Amino acid sequence: MAPSSGPSARSPPSIPMELYAQNRDKLVQALRESLAASSRPIRGFVLLQGGEEQTRYCTDHIELFRQESYFSYLFGVREPGFYGAIDIASGQSLLFAPRLSPDYAVWLGEIKPLVYFKERYMVSKVFYVDEIVQVLTDQYGESEKPLLFLLYGLNTDSNNFSKPAVLEEMEKFDTDLSTLHPILTECRVFKSELELALIQYANDVSSEAHIEVMRQTRAGMKEYQLESTFLHHIYMYGGCRHCSYTCICATGENSSVLHYGHAAAPNDRTLKDGDMALFDMGAEYHFYGSDITCSFPVNGRFTKDQAIIYNAVLKAHNAVLSEMKPGVGWVDMHKLAEKIILESLQKGSILVGNIDDMMAKRLGAIFMPHGLGHLLGIDTHDPGGYPKGIERPKEPGLKSLRTARELKEGMVITVEPGCYFIDALLIPALQAPETSDFFNRKELDKYKDFGGVRIESDVYVTSTGCKNLTNCPRETWEIEAVMAGAQWPLDSNFIRNKSENKLNLDSN
Amino acid sequence: MAPSSGPSARSPPSIPMELYAQNRDKLVQALRESLAASSRPIRGFVLLQGGEEQTRYCTDHIELFRQESYFSYLFGVREPGFYGAIDIASGQSLLFAPRLSPDYAVWLGEIKPLVYFKERYMVSKVFYVDEIVQVLTDQYGESEKPLLFLLYGLNTDSNNFSKPAVLEEMEKFDTDLSTLHPILTECRVFKSELELALIQYANDVSSEAHIEVMRQTRAGMKEYQLESTFLHHIYMYGGCRHCSYTCICATGENSSVLHYGHAAAPNDRTLKDGDMALFDMGAEYHFYGSDITCSFPVNGRFTKDQAIIYNAVLKAHNAVLSEMKPGVGWVDMHKLAEKIILESLQKGSILVGNIDDMMAKRLGAIFMPHGLGHLLGIDTHDPGGYPKGIERPKEPGLKSLRTARELKEGMVITVEPGCYFIDALLIPALQAPETSDFFNRKELDKYKDFGGVRIESDVYVTSTGCKNLTNCPRETWEIEAVMAGAQWPLDSNFIRNKSENKLNLDSN
Repeated sequence: MAPSSGPSARSPPSIPMELYAQNRDKLVQALRESLAASSRPIRGFVLLQGGEEQTRYCTDHIELFRQESYFSYLFGVREPGFYGAIDIASGQSLLFAPRLSPDYAVWLGEIKPLVYFKERYMVSKVFYVDEIVQVLTDQYGESEKPLLFLLYGLNTDSNNFSKPAVLEEMEKFDTDLSTLHPILTECRVFKSELELALIQYANDVSSEAHIEVMRQTRAGMKEYQLESTFLHHIYMYGGCRHCSYTCICATGENSSVLHYGHAAAPNDRTLKDGDMALFDMGAEYHFYGSDITCSFPVNGRFTKDQAIIYNAVLKAHNAVLSEMKPGVGWVDMHKLAEKIILESLQKGSILVGNIDDMMAKRLGAIFMPHGLGHLLGIDTHDPGGYPKGIERPKEPGLKSLRTARELKEGMVITVEPGCYFIDALLIPALQAPETSDFFNRKELDKYKDFGGVRIESDVYVTSTGCKNLTNCPRETWEIEAVMAGAQWPLDSNFIRNKSENKLNLDSN
Repeated sequence: MAPSSGPSARSPPSIPMELYAQNRDKLVQALRESLAASSRPIRGFVLLQGGEEQTRYCTDHIELFRQESYFSYLFGVREPGFYGAIDIASGQSLLFAPRLSPDYAVWLGEIKPLVYFKERYMVSKVFYVDEIVQVLTDQYGESEKPLLFLLYGLNTDSNNFSKPAVLEEMEKFDTDLSTLHPILTECRVFKSELELALIQYANDVSSEAHIEVMRQTRAGMKEYQLESTFLHHIYMYGGCRHCSYTCICATGENSSVLHYGHAAAPNDRTLKDGDMALFDMGAEYHFYGSDITCSFPVNGRFTKDQAIIYNAVLKAHNAVLSEMKPGVGWVDMHKLAEKIILESLQKGSILVGNIDDMMAKRLGAIFMPHGLGHLLGIDTHDPGGYPKGIERPKEPGLKSLRTARELKEGMVITVEPGCYFIDALLIPALQAPETSDFFNRKELDKYKDFGGVRIESDVYVTSTGCKNLTNCPRETWEIEAVMAGAQWPLDSNFIRNKSENKLNLDSN
């Protein structure tokens, strides 16, 4: 029996609001440079509209509000109904708070004075939303209409467009819909030290929660009980009310469903002895997220067949981390991971033939149909993966990449190779003349209900290499030790004892 | 130290899909009667559009889907993207499933055949959404356009209108927007035995989780840690992935904020010795909800002042339950609760003067500005509180009532009297000539940072009275016993020992 882990000693850090002031300064610098480069005047306002609370269909059921991500990036405001502006000429920041009805004080809490928001969010000035037009006109101080830079552009993951701020008297302004989005998006790609600290915190909390999940996992449980264990750990001990995304708690054959866990596939299978588990879960802390996947055997001991697949993926994961540094192309990293996985499958006799031939036929995409990883920040799939000039690849597997950029210092990107046995992809590949000869059907058959393995870490690109922000047991023996009750990180005594026990057991 | 409670022995029940078949039958009967009464032909289709998954702003972050409530009521479908129809003439039910792209099998899971949905949801026929027009036209079988009864009407809690189903070729149908909504809403007001069983289950799970929260509560904790404790209990042991509403975990002065706990007031206060806690939290199980409030002292022992307010509210709660039965008016129940609270405050020397005068001045609404309770079911504020002919009262307090109906057998309604010390209401009442003389300022001052007390149970109206579905400790001594580690329900030995201990302690 694994001991139940006690409460974490972790204490949620206070939020440094300088983070958002720095984000605004960075945007202002970038905008000024862009305007200067095209000989445009250095003036006008960035204007963003924060998110609003949403009710469920026609009812008064209010969904728990989470701020829109671009607005979060610039203002860090947790309340709904705000607008925010930045004066490009002066660098001043202005927040506009909703004017609340007196009833608010009875039902929803104290009506905070404007100065509360000014101090909390470290902005230059605060007014009410209904004062925006007057305030911006006064602040502009010129005879012509003030120029507003509004946020409008494509999110390359969703194919949705961001909605520009809406004002009642928009005709009193000139508007520019094209300048802001690419510049602000590019700002978000490169994380500051303060941003990195929050992403690291989300990673610390989530890594710890993943370990707690590993320790609690038993055959006979429901997948959702481990989702619940994760959610409880990050909130109870980490102060994280939101997840970066809906938890994927897949076991057995479900682990080959890349985005399992949604309402139509709601983590409700019963765990069986002999299953692999694939748990993809990440906490969010004050808008900044994490995205971590651990794969492990439900019963705490890898079989030889499980270890073949797991180690194939781990080798790919580690190889990518050892290659990552500024200047390295992400498409090349994806292909590196694919190649290592194919080599391992070949070594494990699941595939036969020449690796280069397999790569040429894009066989890697049968086993890893998703991209190697994506930018991570305020959104799990952080924007900026395909700025102007970077084309999305068209080949199977590569076309799923959420970025095809070269790595640069300051990026945070997930490294999440996987190897899955997905009937919808394997059956056609087994039939297609150009790929059918690569498979050793007898060995492949062993993995019929295996599902898949994914190992996902969040990685920061440094000036000379990279830093893994995630801290989970990754080697098969580390996982087995932690699942058997060892503290993480393992201490050297434990490792020695464990090895001796294992030898004794193996000789029985 | 309270012992930590072990895992619950509770096992989430399987969902009886007959429940939804019964709901449909009930609607068909009611519609046929209504059509017959107005000499209209008994034919046409009820057509409802189920909910769709929503992404967060422009991103691909998908919020966890929860089905629209009317659609849930008739079809019980957990997946997004469906339509449902009921043939009024034959009573047949038809589901229309979205046609999923082959990619779905890789990313989101097995593409289920139509027969899966037919069997799971016990409907007469299943087709694809893109076949609706053809199927309904064929099924109608007459030369004129088929008549669709669409859902359009006011939600009297949100003041929002439900959105009627949208089809691409709506011009191929005649539509009726007025008949369905009031009839379907009225069906939802009266719960069947199968519905009641799910509401009872949600209540059982939530009651147990509230008790776990009481046991874990300690000064020094954050409010959200008790939210996390509740959420974990209902999911881990109850299989409840959703709550009926965002948890209200209010302590100290926050407990006078009726809807505390939202994003701008996010359960983040640190509990202090001497605080009262007001925790309003309810689990939802397969669409059916619960709505329970427990109030208790953070340190596990009521002070005399706390007991005055708590017992005032409990007396009101119990008096309402003892009066509830078919034919009783809900406005009268609200006034009964108000009167008992005012009497108790007078007995506690917080108020002075004649109770009838206080009632005439609506003084109760200063201490309980919300309504006594609301219909409960698939929505926390279940619709149907103000059908045609029932007017919303206009007086303070009474105007907040979500229903002014007479009770009838089959209703499930919350009973949630409260007594709060809300500056935004007390300060004006202390100044107003018509109310200022009622207050004993010296006694009132003791409650400056008290916050408030609410006691909320979910109650089913039977043919002769009512049944409380909620099972939490309510008497002060029961709460103190459970917080000190006693099992719930208390056993008689414990009660005797506890009383003796208490006497001993009191004599020290």
